[in-house]
Amino acid sequence: MRELAKKARAASYELASLSSAIKNKALIMMAEQLEAHSREILIENKKDINANNGLPKALLDRLTLDQGRIRLMSLSLRQVASLADPVGELIKGWARPNGLRIHKVRVPIGVVGIIYESRPNVTSDSIGLCLKSGNVSILRGGKEAINTNRAIYKILSTAARISGIPLNAINFIDTTDRKALRFLLGLSAYVDLLIPRGGEGLIRFIQGHTKIPVIKNYKGVCHTFVDEHADLNMARDICFNAKVSSPGVCNAMETLLIHKGIAKSFLPIMIKRFKDAKVEIRGCPKTRKIIADINKAKEADWYTEYLGLILSVKVVESIDQAVTHINHYGSHHSDAIVTENYENALKFSDRVDSACVYVNASTRFSDGYEFGLGSEIGISTDKIHARGPMALEELTTYKYIIFGNGQIRT
Amino acid sequence: MRELAKKARAASYELASLSSAIKNKALIMMAEQLEAHSREILIENKKDINANNGLPKALLDRLTLDQGRIRLMSLSLRQVASLADPVGELIKGWARPNGLRIHKVRVPIGVVGIIYESRPNVTSDSIGLCLKSGNVSILRGGKEAINTNRAIYKILSTAARISGIPLNAINFIDTTDRKALRFLLGLSAYVDLLIPRGGEGLIRFIQGHTKIPVIKNYKGVCHTFVDEHADLNMARDICFNAKVSSPGVCNAMETLLIHKGIAKSFLPIMIKRFKDAKVEIRGCPKTRKIIADINKAKEADWYTEYLGLILSVKVVESIDQAVTHINHYGSHHSDAIVTENYENALKFSDRVDSACVYVNASTRFSDGYEFGLGSEIGISTDKIHARGPMALEELTTYKYIIFGNGQIRT
Repeated sequence: MRELAKKARAASYELASLSSAIKNKALIMMAEQLEAHSREILIENKKDINANNGLPKALLDRLTLDQGRIRLMSLSLRQVASLADPVGELIKGWARPNGLRIHKVRVPIGVVGIIYESRPNVTSDSIGLCLKSGNVSILRGGKEAINTNRAIYKILSTAARISGIPLNAINFIDTTDRKALRFLLGLSAYVDLLIPRGGEGLIRFIQGHTKIPVIKNYKGVCHTFVDEHADLNMARDICFNAKVSSPGVCNAMETLLIHKGIAKSFLPIMIKRFKDAKVEIRGCPKTRKIIADINKAKEADWYTEYLGLILSVKVVESIDQAVTHINHYGSHHSDAIVTENYENALKFSDRVDSACVYVNASTRFSDGYEFGLGSEIGISTDKIHARGPMALEELTTYKYIIFGNGQIRT
Repeated sequence: MRELAKKARAASYELASLSSAIKNKALIMMAEQLEAHSREILIENKKDINANNGLPKALLDRLTLDQGRIRLMSLSLRQVASLADPVGELIKGWARPNGLRIHKVRVPIGVVGIIYESRPNVTSDSIGLCLKSGNVSILRGGKEAINTNRAIYKILSTAARISGIPLNAINFIDTTDRKALRFLLGLSAYVDLLIPRGGEGLIRFIQGHTKIPVIKNYKGVCHTFVDEHADLNMARDICFNAKVSSPGVCNAMETLLIHKGIAKSFLPIMIKRFKDAKVEIRGCPKTRKIIADINKAKEADWYTEYLGLILSVKVVESIDQAVTHINHYGSHHSDAIVTENYENALKFSDRVDSACVYVNASTRFSDGYEFGLGSEIGISTDKIHARGPMALEELTTYKYIIFGNGQIRT
C-alpha cells in the first residue's frame, strides 16, 4: 500500500502537466470501453447482488446496474471530456509597484483518495473527474460492490493506459479489509485529500483516524419552507418532488416548514397527496391540530435524515423562525423557500447557512450533473475548500507563480 | 468557553450581513485608536519583555513593539479597510436548460479560531482580516505576549463596538492554559476553521486533537536554484537577500542549489559574501571541492528550517535534479529559480510543487502585505482551501443560491 501511494505521488507530477487532448482522448475511450464491456460488468454486478440479497431494498437498488445505468456512467465520462480543463487556468494576476507579476494559477491537488460505499457509478465518476482535473486517484469502495467496482476499474484503467495516461494515475485498493483502510489513512506523506462518501459512521471513522485533510459529505437534512406568499400549487409540486422522487438520497426533503398564515389552506391537500404516496407524516402540535390522524414529531425528528418515506412537518410563526430552525436543525446541505415575495426570497437566500439555497425549486437539483458540472465526486457539507456539489474545479488548488527581474525585499 | 463559542456562532449570522460601510468605519477607528493608545500598549509590552528576558534574541525581537511597529499595525488595518469587501461577490453564475439560475456567491466562513505564538501584530492583523471578511474571530495567543495581546484586543474590540460591530464578533481567550486550548479544540459545533501559527509542535498538537478543519502554516524550507543561464550578479543579490534580510522567518532561504556549469564561477564570491555576514555554510561534497573550509551538509540538513544564519548548499547536475530535490526535501512553501532562459523559467515554475514559485526574485516576497493583500492571517503550506499567503479571500467560502420558478426534477 505504501508502495502504491509512493508511486501515486510520483505519477501525480507527470499527470499534472499532461495535455487536455490526451486526457480527453482517454476519457472518450473509457466511455466507449465501458459500454463495449457492459456484459462483463453486469456479470460481476450479478455476483455482488447475489452475495448481498439480504440488503434492504433501497441499498440493493443502489448497488444494481443495468444497461441504462452503464450508459449513464458512460455519458457522464463523455460530458467530463467535453468540459473545459481546469488545470492551467489563470485565476487572477496582477502587478506590484516593484514590478513583480503575480499569477494565481489553477493546478491539480495531487493524490486524492475516494472512500465510498455501495454505488458503483462512484467508481467511474471519480476516475473520470480525477483524471480530467489532473489528479491521481486512489479508490477504495465498499465490500458489497467489490466485484462490480473491480470490473469497472479494470476497463477504465486499461483504456486510460492505452490512451497515454501514466501508469499509477488510477489506483484501486482491491481489498475491503479495514486494516488496509487504516493503513491508507496513515499515508499523509503521499495523499493530499480524502473524500469519503457513505454513511455518517464511515465518515466519522475516517475523520477520527487520519491527518490527511478530509472533505466531508455528511447527511442531508433538507428543508422546504412554504412562505405565506407562496403559490400553493407550485409549493405542493415542489414539496412532493423533493420528498418522493428519490427518498433515499441526500438532497431529498426531510422537513417541511409552513407559514402559519397558509397552513390551513395548504396542508390538507398536501398531506393527502403524501399519504397517497405512502409517506408517513410526523407533525408538530399545530400541524396535528389541522390534520388529526398523523404521528407526533419528537425533538430528534427535526435532526433526522430519514432516507425514506417519512416527513417531519412544522408550522412556523414567521420566515425568521423558519431560517432559525433550518440553521439550527439542518445539515447545511440544501434548503428551499417557495414564495412570490421578493424581500422574503432574498432574506431566505441570504440568511440560510447552507451549501445550496433554492427559491421556488426542488432541493433535488443539488447534484453535479444537474448543476452542469458533468458529474460529481461528492456533495460537501463542509465550508472549507468546497461546498455543495464537487466536480472538476473543486478537485483543484492553485499556486502562485511570480515573475520578477531581480527584485529583492528591503 | 462553550458559552463564548455559542455566542460567537450566533454573532456570525449577524456579522455576515453587515454592510462594508460599517466594517470599514470600524477598521479605521480601530487603526486610529491603536495609535492613540500606543503608550498603554508599550507599557503592557514592557511587562511581557521583562517576564521573558530569558528568551533567545530572535524571539525577544519578535515579541518587542515600538512606536514604528504599532504604526505598521495601524497602517495594515487601514489597508484592509481600503480593500474591496469579498463578501457578496458573485464568483460565477450560469443558467441551466430548465431555466434554473445558479449563482455562486462568496460568503464568510463563520467562526475562525486563530491560535498563535509570540508576535503581537498577529492579534491586530487577524482581528482586522476576520472583521472585513465577515468572520467572527476567536484569538488565543501565546503566554509570552499575553499582556500585549490583551491590550491590543481591548482597544480594537472597544473601537469595533462603538462603530456598530456586533458584540461577540471579536473574542479573546484571556488565558494561556493548555486546558482552555483543549476545550476550544473540541468545539467543532461552533468553530468552522482553525488557523494555527507558530512552531511545528503547536501545529501538530492542534491537528492531532481536533475535528475542526485546520489550515496548516508549517515550516518554510525554501530554496533558490541558480540555473546555468543565470545572471550571476542578480543571482547573488537575490540569494543574499533571501538568506540574510530576515533569517528568522518562514520565507527565508534555507538551501541554495547551483547548476554544476556555473558553480565554480558563482560560488567563491557568493560564499565569501555569506561568510562576511556570519552565515554558516553546510555544503555537499561538490561544493566542498570548490570551497574548502566549510562544514559538511548531512542528510537531515536538506530537510531543516534553520530560522537562523545557516545555509545548506548543493551543486546539482541539471534543472531536473533541482526540481526533484525541491519537491522531495522542501516544504512546498516558496522556491525560486534565477535564470535568463525562457524554457527553464517555465519548466521550473510548472514543476515545482510549492505555494509560491519565483523567477528572478527573492523568496522573501511571500507575504500578504508584499502581495498587496493588506496583511495576512498566515501562509498556508496546505493545498486544501488556501495556499500561500492567506488574507480576505482565503477567509471566505461560497454558497450556491439557485433561483427557479417551480422547477422539479424528473
